[in-house]
Amino acid sequence: MKIAILLSGGMDSTTLLWSLRAHHTEICAVSIDYGQRHRVELECAAALAQQAGVAHKVIALDLSTIGGSPLIDPNLAVPRATDGQQVNTVVPFRNMLFVTLAAAYAETQGIRDLYLAPVKDDYSAYRDCRRPFYDSLEQSLGLGATRETAFKLHTPFIEMWKTEVVALGQKLAVPYAQTHTCYEGMRPACARCDACAERLEAFKENGARDPLEYEIEIDD
Amino acid sequence: MKIAILLSGGMDSTTLLWSLRAHHTEICAVSIDYGQRHRVELECAAALAQQAGVAHKVIALDLSTIGGSPLIDPNLAVPRATDGQQVNTVVPFRNMLFVTLAAAYAETQGIRDLYLAPVKDDYSAYRDCRRPFYDSLEQSLGLGATRETAFKLHTPFIEMWKTEVVALGQKLAVPYAQTHTCYEGMRPACARCDACAERLEAFKENGARDPLEYEIEIDD
Repeated sequence: MKIAILLSGGMDSTTLLWSLRAHHTEICAVSIDYGQRHRVELECAAALAQQAGVAHKVIALDLSTIGGSPLIDPNLAVPRATDGQQVNTVVPFRNMLFVTLAAAYAETQGIRDLYLAPVKDDYSAYRDCRRPFYDSLEQSLGLGATRETAFKLHTPFIEMWKTEVVALGQKLAVPYAQTHTCYEGMRPACARCDACAERLEAFKENGARDPLEYEIEIDD
Repeated sequence: MKIAILLSGGMDSTTLLWSLRAHHTEICAVSIDYGQRHRVELECAAALAQQAGVAHKVIALDLSTIGGSPLIDPNLAVPRATDGQQVNTVVPFRNMLFVTLAAAYAETQGIRDLYLAPVKDDYSAYRDCRRPFYDSLEQSLGLGATRETAFKLHTPFIEMWKTEVVALGQKLAVPYAQTHTCYEGMRPACARCDACAERLEAFKENGARDPLEYEIEIDD
């Protein structure tokens, strides 16, 4: 049975891809090109899909006409983790659009199972990373599909902290040096945005060193 | 209170816009540029919004990477009404994507009420034109919004046949000559595709003459 996974090229979805490889032979990784400031993650996603030996599909979604988030508007500054402004990086309904686009593509491919990697850390800032939302979305997809079809949205990491995801990823030998996290889109990564801060913390809590290059010296 | 309406530039949504004008002073019409073969409807939507005296926002959505429908793939033929193949013109989750994009824009504008014009005729071929789908989608939007917000999806024509919509539109003096319906994107309209056939039938049942130009002679 063919499955699809939303692969951003970040730590969580890459770990999910590596964990799915063990149980599924036919996997299609779907990435969304939404004009993100950190576009380098799309290149990472392509390289990671190739390394995992799975198909890769990029779907374009122009969110520039929606606006409102520094992740897509180069005129807005990405807040630092210390600003406590993470909610301002939210693109309205971003996950809902991503999942629906992936489901549209999946429908044309006869795929009914979509895997996504929201983690427990996302819960407070992002309401669209909570399971009640995905339960509802699953129902909407089922009711809105061209023909009566049950779409399943699998979120196996939703009760896991990012720290636990990294622990799992290390067992699976996930090539974390090739993943991308930084919201600024910088390589070496900035180490200052929310995304970098969370990533570094997850490695630190595992007593591990993040293999990614950073712009500044990282304390062990 | 500001409201938004999904305006395709077709008969149904234009009639809805004209009926809303009587009760709402702040209306934003949202149209989706999804690479449709019948792109002329976007020009119609812009002209109609201007004539109605409401704001108009066009949101881009590139569905070409999804594919699968002649409405977006110039290599696929639009079926004739007599082929009974209307389901093949479906772009998977098209309405769900349109509504979610409109909601994303609405969120940035502080708008919580979205109006859409599915009609009873759409019910059999398009599952995403049924009210249980919109009830579920309303719930998904509420759960997925950046902050806790109740979005309302209003579908006042969902229990009306297209014939009844035309009857209402004639009372409201809707400028039907400026609306666009033909899936082929032709002006004069082709009169042969599903969309043209349904439109002509709706006028005929009202004992009215469609003011639109057609490529062929239309019997009264």
